[in-house]
Amino acid sequence: MRKYAIIGVGHVGATVAYTLVCQGIADELILIDKNEKKARAEQLDLQDTQARLDSHTTIKINDYAELADTDILFVTSGNIHALDHASGNRWAEFEYTREIVQDIAPKIKASGFNGVLIDVMNPCDCITYFLQQATGLPTNQVLGTGTFLDTARMQKVVGENFNVDPKNVTGYTLGEHGESQFVAWSTVSVNGLPIEQLAEERQLDLADLESQARGGGWAVHSGKGYTSYAIATCAVKLSRAVLDDANLACPCSCYSDKYGTYVGHPAIIGKSGVVEALRLPITAEEEAKLAKSAGFIREKFETLPSQEAVEEA
Amino acid sequence: MRKYAIIGVGHVGATVAYTLVCQGIADELILIDKNEKKARAEQLDLQDTQARLDSHTTIKINDYAELADTDILFVTSGNIHALDHASGNRWAEFEYTREIVQDIAPKIKASGFNGVLIDVMNPCDCITYFLQQATGLPTNQVLGTGTFLDTARMQKVVGENFNVDPKNVTGYTLGEHGESQFVAWSTVSVNGLPIEQLAEERQLDLADLESQARGGGWAVHSGKGYTSYAIATCAVKLSRAVLDDANLACPCSCYSDKYGTYVGHPAIIGKSGVVEALRLPITAEEEAKLAKSAGFIREKFETLPSQEAVEEA
Amino acid sequence: MRKYAIIGVGHVGATVAYTLVCQGIADELILIDKNEKKARAEQLDLQDTQARLDSHTTIKINDYAELADTDILFVTSGNIHALDHASGNRWAEFEYTREIVQDIAPKIKASGFNGVLIDVMNPCDCITYFLQQATGLPTNQVLGTGTFLDTARMQKVVGENFNVDPKNVTGYTLGEHGESQFVAWSTVSVNGLPIEQLAEERQLDLADLESQARGGGWAVHSGKGYTSYAIATCAVKLSRAVLDDANLACPCSCYSDKYGTYVGHPAIIGKSGVVEALRLPITAEEEAKLAKSAGFIREKFETLPSQEAVEEA
Amino acid sequence: MRKYAIIGVGHVGATVAYTLVCQGIADELILIDKNEKKARAEQLDLQDTQARLDSHTTIKINDYAELADTDILFVTSGNIHALDHASGNRWAEFEYTREIVQDIAPKIKASGFNGVLIDVMNPCDCITYFLQQATGLPTNQVLGTGTFLDTARMQKVVGENFNVDPKNVTGYTLGEHGESQFVAWSTVSVNGLPIEQLAEERQLDLADLESQARGGGWAVHSGKGYTSYAIATCAVKLSRAVLDDANLACPCSCYSDKYGTYVGHPAIIGKSGVVEALRLPITAEEEAKLAKSAGFIREKFETLPSQEAVEEA
Repeated sequence: MRKYAIIGVGHVGATVAYTLVCQGIADELILIDKNEKKARAEQLDLQDTQARLDSHTTIKINDYAELADTDILFVTSGNIHALDHASGNRWAEFEYTREIVQDIAPKIKASGFNGVLIDVMNPCDCITYFLQQATGLPTNQVLGTGTFLDTARMQKVVGENFNVDPKNVTGYTLGEHGESQFVAWSTVSVNGLPIEQLAEERQLDLADLESQARGGGWAVHSGKGYTSYAIATCAVKLSRAVLDDANLACPCSCYSDKYGTYVGHPAIIGKSGVVEALRLPITAEEEAKLAKSAGFIREKFETLPSQEAVEEA
Repeated sequence: MRKYAIIGVGHVGATVAYTLVCQGIADELILIDKNEKKARAEQLDLQDTQARLDSHTTIKINDYAELADTDILFVTSGNIHALDHASGNRWAEFEYTREIVQDIAPKIKASGFNGVLIDVMNPCDCITYFLQQATGLPTNQVLGTGTFLDTARMQKVVGENFNVDPKNVTGYTLGEHGESQFVAWSTVSVNGLPIEQLAEERQLDLADLESQARGGGWAVHSGKGYTSYAIATCAVKLSRAVLDDANLACPCSCYSDKYGTYVGHPAIIGKSGVVEALRLPITAEEEAKLAKSAGFIREKFETLPSQEAVEEA
Repeated sequence: MRKYAIIGVGHVGATVAYTLVCQGIADELILIDKNEKKARAEQLDLQDTQARLDSHTTIKINDYAELADTDILFVTSGNIHALDHASGNRWAEFEYTREIVQDIAPKIKASGFNGVLIDVMNPCDCITYFLQQATGLPTNQVLGTGTFLDTARMQKVVGENFNVDPKNVTGYTLGEHGESQFVAWSTVSVNGLPIEQLAEERQLDLADLESQARGGGWAVHSGKGYTSYAIATCAVKLSRAVLDDANLACPCSCYSDKYGTYVGHPAIIGKSGVVEALRLPITAEEEAKLAKSAGFIREKFETLPSQEAVEEA
Repeated sequence: MRKYAIIGVGHVGATVAYTLVCQGIADELILIDKNEKKARAEQLDLQDTQARLDSHTTIKINDYAELADTDILFVTSGNIHALDHASGNRWAEFEYTREIVQDIAPKIKASGFNGVLIDVMNPCDCITYFLQQATGLPTNQVLGTGTFLDTARMQKVVGENFNVDPKNVTGYTLGEHGESQFVAWSTVSVNGLPIEQLAEERQLDLADLESQARGGGWAVHSGKGYTSYAIATCAVKLSRAVLDDANLACPCSCYSDKYGTYVGHPAIIGKSGVVEALRLPITAEEEAKLAKSAGFIREKFETLPSQEAVEEA
């Protein structure tokens, strides 16, 4: 059976829960939230749908003990009010989410959880790394959505500009799920043709496309106060790659030996979580950008308390 | 192709949109909202998901002209802040939603829309009737979710109490999608056995179950500030019955010749919308409750401006 | 993860496999067939689809050891050429399928399989009972599709005659998945109204509807040489009720304490397989028909070798 | 609404029908077959499933008049016994399928069909071209599955050899859906890396992979007597790209101005069918292979009767 749990049922967590229920993906689903009334309300709302769905999901709330045999754990807590809208700075969430990690990681550890943890909190890379350290899970069992969403936005923007389905656009957005991210244009193809060549022919400015893609999240955010559907769909897709043992290549936040930190880069996702990081055929200039972005994440990470400190607390 | 439109992309409208997109139901989807930034944000968020989905939905915003060849139009506008939480009174939304109808109905009419309109606004029965009158569409082409959701909640509560899937519970909640609704227990069976007999055997109090079911929406509301998943799923299911020409029996808000008003009672839903209302094998006592509930709706409806007045305005 | 296995990949087994793959239900799927080339061909054909599906299923063949941690095992072997078309007699398959049981049951047992076994072989009730005895699995972990399909055919025929979706038709076909089956008309409702009353009003002959329903399988059989889609869909639905722990009420072939045999009657299906048989509100006449049908199955069952004999062989 | 029709309900046609029904894709479905008993049997089998599905599809048989407002028409007739198993020669079907075209094309034309026709008959490219000529439909409204399936097989084989999901493999098999097809290895990437480079590193022989991919269909064929699941999934995916107006890039059999024939090469598929053929970044050697394969198809095509001859007959 497919057993899922979600810590944090705000907009993203609840949308992930709804997706798992309405697509019949989860056989069992545990919702955990500090705000018990909210967790209970989402449970009730999702249970009320069961009479109208062809599938059935058993939904429970606020019991960490259930994590012991959970396959996939999403962590989607966060304080959306902490987001600095004007500056579009995901680091504004940092002071909240690092405290959340210190609160929940020991509980996850104590539960005996041994599945795959998918982090959706921000700043994604740094917090995912912190979660991995604080839970003591192997690095392959902890990943973040990272630039999986940013890559989807890049595919959307490119698809629109070339009037094709985003699924025709391959390639990656790399680095931090934040301001230092970048599109590795040398990896991007449209219908199998390198975008750099096509852009030249059509006199399209790739920097402009990149800026549209990067700003995508904030456009959504400023209009609805949060983002939910695309990020939830990305998170669910990662989880399915794990459960199906799909060995699907996805850019996401995972640990890089080279850079000594979590950072958005493509990896093979399968049964064990991150099966292996992919080699990247990128230019020296892109390599430098990735190193810089990773360095920035690593630097922030070092400001966090050590695993020992979390355990003692 | 399946062409959908949604007027009002608040929590319910946006969830309906997400459901149509993530389940690959809609080929084309028009989102309309007075708050253009909100409509644009939902469009972007949904477009960002396209790279992660197997299907594709073309999404446009704020163009009433698109309604001309739309198959299904959901109206989900509403002012959630208008809800009187303490009293659980959906009529508190009335003063807002009746103005919304006066604003949008002429635009719907002018567009040449000739599909099926499914209303999800509150107070559902009264506003659905008003929408039908103000748009001039035939009564069969205008229906409201009505007690389809209340029936799902009844099925959930009964299912929980008997430890069975809600889909094993048949029967109807009838009347107003509001306080005067009631469960027609004489219609309710669990696994094919009449609940009245089972309840007696188990010494279960049906009045207590009814109260749990009726309070279901408010429990969700008080915990998350709105309800979204169950109502969206109900709305989408009604729309699929229309597109599939399923002739599916659903309790919903539709016009009753007998009572001269829209009121929640089961009808056959198919290609033309409401194909026919179902005869109900209910007791005289239940019949009286339904008459009373319908009378209440009719009374409120009569306080609304006439179609002519809407047109002149 | 959801791990499925299928023994026998003829028309039904292959259709079950395709359904599990194309709907993204199975994470892992084991195909077992004496005809290794056939098993390999189905594996290849299903693997070839993976590039065109959003989900991924890991497919392996002909390894009984894989059953050790399999959740759901379908047994769909059978010799379609053994079917006596003219007489419509499923017992013609008996001499083949009982040998199949004697071949596979010891292998299933040896594998340590401890999931839920769903039998789709004919004559369904007798062979399911034999499988349960020969594998030594508890009765709750072994069930057959039985009259779940016959009930679907009854719902289809009734739906057509009343011009409603078959899902509006509730009630059961009971007894043997064979000639002694019968529709328990006292349990059948259309849109919540007893069919016996409706039939009288419309001067519809229920015996005629029953004959259409009963003959449904043979109409399909004579046109295409086998039946596949409806039976596969029934089998998959039973399996989902188990994996989802849905506690869904389904008429299927399960053990009856009362009659001392497997026979088609409604039961609650959940995590442990058959959670409990349902009490049936049927008439004395229907009760007698059920007893007779069960007696017929029991009698046939007693001609089979004992569990000990199977083990010794 | 989504209205589909299928001419020819053999293994492939029936599997396409089942896919459309069990995934809830088709709202209405017309099955046409010379063997009326077979068409009726498939209709019945699919109708019997409706009680077990969450969706509803209205299914009719053998009425060409229904094509007038059909959106998607699959042509899947064929004589599987005509296939020369030993030689693996799809041209062995030619003498049957060209007669089928002469039989059905005038009926399609007379019906006023104006949707998109997707041919699944063999030899695919030649017969698709003949169908386009004989129906008089514009070339963009007629396409064949062509190398969409062969490309899936190549993705499967490459995925297996690199232990990744086939969806990580991009690139095309081009030319005839037959012996003169070839993998354009210069277009193939695995996880974004050119396969030619990876193969060199791993000392993998691409010619060997190509041979595995090309032989894939015959391996399936020799084991089960036909192929069905992968081809049906490809056909359905093409149809969804049309209905969703997805502008999805798919290698399929479509008309090439350059070669003056239908031949397998990638095109953008959307609302109007083939929106545009894609420019191909292939090597001169691959270009020559494509020209040769197209020439072979063109040559065979010229042996067919002209459109006028078909009309006069």
